[in-house]
Amino acid sequence: MKKQEKKPNKELEDFGKKLVVDIDKGRNPTIEFSLRSLSNVVYDTKSRTLKLGNKQQQRSFFNVGHAKKFLQTLEVAKVSKNLLNVNKHASLRDVFYMAKRTIPQSNINIVDDQVESDKALEDLELITDCSREQLNVNANKMGSVAGNVVIEDAGDSINWSKLGSGGWSIPSNVENIKFKSVKAKYIIYMEKQAVWERLHEDKFWNKQNCLIVTSQGQTTRGIRRLLQRINDEYKLPIYVLADFDPWGFYIYSVLKFGSINLAHMSGTMTLQNARFLGVTADDVDNYDLKKHFIKFKDVDYTRLKQIADYDWFKNNKPWQRQFKMMKGFGAKLEIQSLSSKGITFISDKYLPEKIKKKEFLD
Amino acid sequence: MKKQEKKPNKELEDFGKKLVVDIDKGRNPTIEFSLRSLSNVVYDTKSRTLKLGNKQQQRSFFNVGHAKKFLQTLEVAKVSKNLLNVNKHASLRDVFYMAKRTIPQSNINIVDDQVESDKALEDLELITDCSREQLNVNANKMGSVAGNVVIEDAGDSINWSKLGSGGWSIPSNVENIKFKSVKAKYIIYMEKQAVWERLHEDKFWNKQNCLIVTSQGQTTRGIRRLLQRINDEYKLPIYVLADFDPWGFYIYSVLKFGSINLAHMSGTMTLQNARFLGVTADDVDNYDLKKHFIKFKDVDYTRLKQIADYDWFKNNKPWQRQFKMMKGFGAKLEIQSLSSKGITFISDKYLPEKIKKKEFLD
Repeated sequence: MKKQEKKPNKELEDFGKKLVVDIDKGRNPTIEFSLRSLSNVVYDTKSRTLKLGNKQQQRSFFNVGHAKKFLQTLEVAKVSKNLLNVNKHASLRDVFYMAKRTIPQSNINIVDDQVESDKALEDLELITDCSREQLNVNANKMGSVAGNVVIEDAGDSINWSKLGSGGWSIPSNVENIKFKSVKAKYIIYMEKQAVWERLHEDKFWNKQNCLIVTSQGQTTRGIRRLLQRINDEYKLPIYVLADFDPWGFYIYSVLKFGSINLAHMSGTMTLQNARFLGVTADDVDNYDLKKHFIKFKDVDYTRLKQIADYDWFKNNKPWQRQFKMMKGFGAKLEIQSLSSKGITFISDKYLPEKIKKKEFLD
Repeated sequence: MKKQEKKPNKELEDFGKKLVVDIDKGRNPTIEFSLRSLSNVVYDTKSRTLKLGNKQQQRSFFNVGHAKKFLQTLEVAKVSKNLLNVNKHASLRDVFYMAKRTIPQSNINIVDDQVESDKALEDLELITDCSREQLNVNANKMGSVAGNVVIEDAGDSINWSKLGSGGWSIPSNVENIKFKSVKAKYIIYMEKQAVWERLHEDKFWNKQNCLIVTSQGQTTRGIRRLLQRINDEYKLPIYVLADFDPWGFYIYSVLKFGSINLAHMSGTMTLQNARFLGVTADDVDNYDLKKHFIKFKDVDYTRLKQIADYDWFKNNKPWQRQFKMMKGFGAKLEIQSLSSKGITFISDKYLPEKIKKKEFLD
């Protein structure tokens, strides 16, 4: 069963009922779920994503080392159930404040630090097999989208092609939006809002029949899920447009292969069809961009080496070639350096040419 | 004449023509404009904004100390003129790459660092008396808005009340949008997207007949101008909702009184009708929030003292009372701590109550 088809309400109820059974039978109330620690994160070569392995962990009420975490897990489950009951959403920070109450007849707070409620929520994702978005807890809101798409969301019908220069502001939680019409052949996801504004002003999405999506820097969960849902439901390929530097590569790496933090969510948070469109080492020569090199610092070399050593890049020849060339240049390059070739060079020439020639890295 | 009514094209042409006259008459081509340095930034008690004083500076072509800056100023003027000619916009980073070309028969670049093109553009704002947005150079894109407003932008008619859970994504440049209908009594501007999502889900803007606007952290120029335009054109008061900490106060301070960097733009970038709605020191008692205090660190005390010493706060008794109480608490408080009172407490009780009682700081 796909995660989005799960009924979070039912899952939470089942979770509670199981504990009641434990109590009724005089057993120590115990929760069991996959171990979320580095030792249980594996790279699955078949799905090409970081996943949790098979190790399990237990959390019991009558266990001095577990009792507080047990209580925290139940508390965030209660918060989530309350949210679902009234059909409202809250942010991680809100959940922290909601859970930060003093245990009666004590001076102990259930949580003192957001990291505790965050971890309890991640555990709850595993216990219920529902994402925290499905549990009505939102991540950060960020980013914009434009293209020939009509969606239905919160009772409104929204046409992403008719939103002026701003576009639709992507919410933190996209689980409940419905796609009514999607007219596009692919999606370009870019790390920079300024590049998005360039493509949007040039009506690139209309000319090229695609969607354009941006966050600013790392990709939020809302954007990830939006990309994944369109990719799943409409089989659109996703092309990633980022700077030619280790951080640009990392953005792509996390989007496609996942990350250690998200290993327990790899099914709903990774984009296995994403490909890296640019900027690549080959673009440097092809578009004569050497002049705009930004010299590497030590930290860049270190980061590049780390990325080159990732399991999923280690035996990937085209990627290793990129890493080697970048190291050889000892320099990085920004996507915006294409502006030196002309205001609309990126929309008129660079992107159409690269997409036509299928110059992607996989 | 209001800045938005200026014709940037004509201003740039006049700028060029004046230099041609200098050349034709055998004079040293010279630009004169207000001095942009700390020594010429003054707090104007009448308008209650930071402004440039009366000192002028000159920049001449035949002056070894001026020649490069002179050239840079002309180069960004050319870039801006090119953008205006084709009716396109570019980001500051784009402008840098466009201006970063090598002077023929030399190995000298016109600009080597973005800070040079940025400064040249700020000078150009003074020379032409047009904002860089009017010169088609965009700032950062950030933030969302919702409310009973219909605008026209880039050929689209956009209804801010019909955009689902996401809202309209605010562009970096709002100079060309047209307000067709604005049904609201006030604007709430908040620093946090998560708070915006709370109010939006609760349809606060509809129940309370207001607009809700957010960025994330500091306010972008696009959002500032959006707020200022609605305030100017529809006389709506603006209420600022931020954390109870020196940084929350600073967000308000910059919005209302301006900043040193923006002193030359105070007319179009400050919001003299903004008032601080919360979170205030009084809320701590009124809403029983002490439990959620976050203890001050040294840096918080330092920042608080700096802000308390600002010219515009120095003799402001209600603000000095806030600063004193905050110092007394030795603690700050987040807006989201209101979530501890209930999921929709902020929408149902806190905000309506504060607005009804007119509990603002001016």
